[in-house]
Amino acid sequence: MKNLFTLLLLGIVLFTVSCKNENKPVSENSAVEISQIDPLSSWNEGKTKASIINYVNDVTNASSENFVAIPDRIAVFDNDGNLWSEQPAYFQLFFAIDRVKEMAAEHPEWKTQQPFKAVLENDMTELAKQGEHGLIQLVMATHAGVTTEEFDKDVKNWIATAKHPTKNVGFDELVYQPMLELLQYLRANDFKTYVVSGGGVDFMRAFVTEIYGIPEEQIIGSRIKTAFDYNNGNPVIKRLPELDFIDDKEGKPLNIQKIIGKKPVFSSGNSDGDLQMMQWTASNKLKSFMLYVHHTDSIREWAYDINSHIGRLDKGLNEANEKGWTVIDMKNDWKVIYPFELDAN
Amino acid sequence: MKNLFTLLLLGIVLFTVSCKNENKPVSENSAVEISQIDPLSSWNEGKTKASIINYVNDVTNASSENFVAIPDRIAVFDNDGNLWSEQPAYFQLFFAIDRVKEMAAEHPEWKTQQPFKAVLENDMTELAKQGEHGLIQLVMATHAGVTTEEFDKDVKNWIATAKHPTKNVGFDELVYQPMLELLQYLRANDFKTYVVSGGGVDFMRAFVTEIYGIPEEQIIGSRIKTAFDYNNGNPVIKRLPELDFIDDKEGKPLNIQKIIGKKPVFSSGNSDGDLQMMQWTASNKLKSFMLYVHHTDSIREWAYDINSHIGRLDKGLNEANEKGWTVIDMKNDWKVIYPFELDAN
Repeated sequence: MKNLFTLLLLGIVLFTVSCKNENKPVSENSAVEISQIDPLSSWNEGKTKASIINYVNDVTNASSENFVAIPDRIAVFDNDGNLWSEQPAYFQLFFAIDRVKEMAAEHPEWKTQQPFKAVLENDMTELAKQGEHGLIQLVMATHAGVTTEEFDKDVKNWIATAKHPTKNVGFDELVYQPMLELLQYLRANDFKTYVVSGGGVDFMRAFVTEIYGIPEEQIIGSRIKTAFDYNNGNPVIKRLPELDFIDDKEGKPLNIQKIIGKKPVFSSGNSDGDLQMMQWTASNKLKSFMLYVHHTDSIREWAYDINSHIGRLDKGLNEANEKGWTVIDMKNDWKVIYPFELDAN
Repeated sequence: MKNLFTLLLLGIVLFTVSCKNENKPVSENSAVEISQIDPLSSWNEGKTKASIINYVNDVTNASSENFVAIPDRIAVFDNDGNLWSEQPAYFQLFFAIDRVKEMAAEHPEWKTQQPFKAVLENDMTELAKQGEHGLIQLVMATHAGVTTEEFDKDVKNWIATAKHPTKNVGFDELVYQPMLELLQYLRANDFKTYVVSGGGVDFMRAFVTEIYGIPEEQIIGSRIKTAFDYNNGNPVIKRLPELDFIDDKEGKPLNIQKIIGKKPVFSSGNSDGDLQMMQWTASNKLKSFMLYVHHTDSIREWAYDINSHIGRLDKGLNEANEKGWTVIDMKNDWKVIYPFELDAN
């Protein structure tokens, strides 16, 4: 009898807790009323914001012909330049730079070998030219030979202290407030939000879960190979200096199919590297939504598109315009860029 | 003002809907009272059942020193021989057999080439000897050249009509009722349940979501390579005849780290192919639970372990006994094996 009551009580407690958790995106905000009135309060009124809200209202309306069942509400977000800034170089590069400098004494050959040479000479222009591929190379050279646990610790230590070279705040403060609101808004409408990024998956997992409210298992990215080592009963996974998968361009829809196994209905990116993910999402038989961030704010953030070495947006912008996908004009659509601007108000 | 009211109303509706969904595992059962009294009603009383319940009670008790926070409640389950039967051959093999027979006219070389020869000669003993590797070969040969969408349709068509050769019921009826209850019990306690199987991930995804209540994105398995094809604006993903990843032995913890990015706290398997996943789970600093299914019921299911070509359990059983992991004695621990036995009562 005692067990019966314990289980019944547990059932009630779990029911209450799960309901509370489910609504956390709304209730955790101290300004609950504001959040309920306008879940996208950092977005200026206009067609961009309206198109997002209209889409979500439509596909979550059970009597709409465009209704999307909850298990199919998969939303994928690129990370660099889409959820946080990526200038003057991918932020993961600054982490790699610190590791290269630490390891340089053991690697005299790096003085003449790219992309290491550029790192040691602080030549950011050259580094930017090496692109995502260069980043992956640095990641492999600097992050191999450690276990997944050690690597996680390294990244956590770094993000706790490192500062952006020109903004002079922590890299984790350079996330886009309007996108944080969008992620929260989608989750409040039972979308499952994913990061699908060219960045390293274990690099991101070390700290973005807390910032974005996206669990580790919903973070997808590029990877190096790994090996299991039983290690006399204390098993570890070792990171090997060999590329496993680049999660960019065609790699994005391929990884989405491998890992999620379902076509997204909502896709958000900022570069040509996201175009195939957009095309894949646009081919969904369910009503889908494609959202491009166009970096147009040279004052508050950065302005760049077709001529940028990082986050180049050219074909993607043409296709977005052609097909009527939604394009965020950062300068005009976003009231604030970063969360710390809210604190300043 | 109208928008404000719409949003508030939407919030209330979503709150209600999400609470209902959250409790579906309990409320969808027509015998609600029984389910709440004993979530593992198909398990006989005894130390196996007690050890599961004690573990779950302990790690979900906020005042226990072993409390595990909800995001860390990751539970991984092997599929073949662990959630459904695997005799006289992996069920995926029967699907492959039908495809091989359909395609045989175009492949005269298969008459002398294993594992195709065994398939065409209905030589199941020989096929079993080819093991998981043989299965993967058949999958590659018979499933490549189609798109992911076509493949999904093929599997759905097959599972709707195919019958097990000796049990003479659909393969999807040969799932273990006690394990379905365990999955549901864990989810009711906020565990996230995953399939981590040597079987093909897209094969499983085509039908197990509905049976196990596990969404596609929580199904992990072996894979063949794929390619993105823009296909004049109607993009498809093509399945290539090349192995991408075998999700077995060391591959299991490696894939868990790649895809989930967190060490599980609960691991369930039935063969030596699950041992590394068990060891990885056992190394969690959080209190973990390792559960082996031992096939001991030659009457209701099958009895096999160290001498089986399929699901061989040898080292795993020794290590389980050595380390005090929980071993299910199928014959004595399970009241019923398959769901249809419940209907018969």
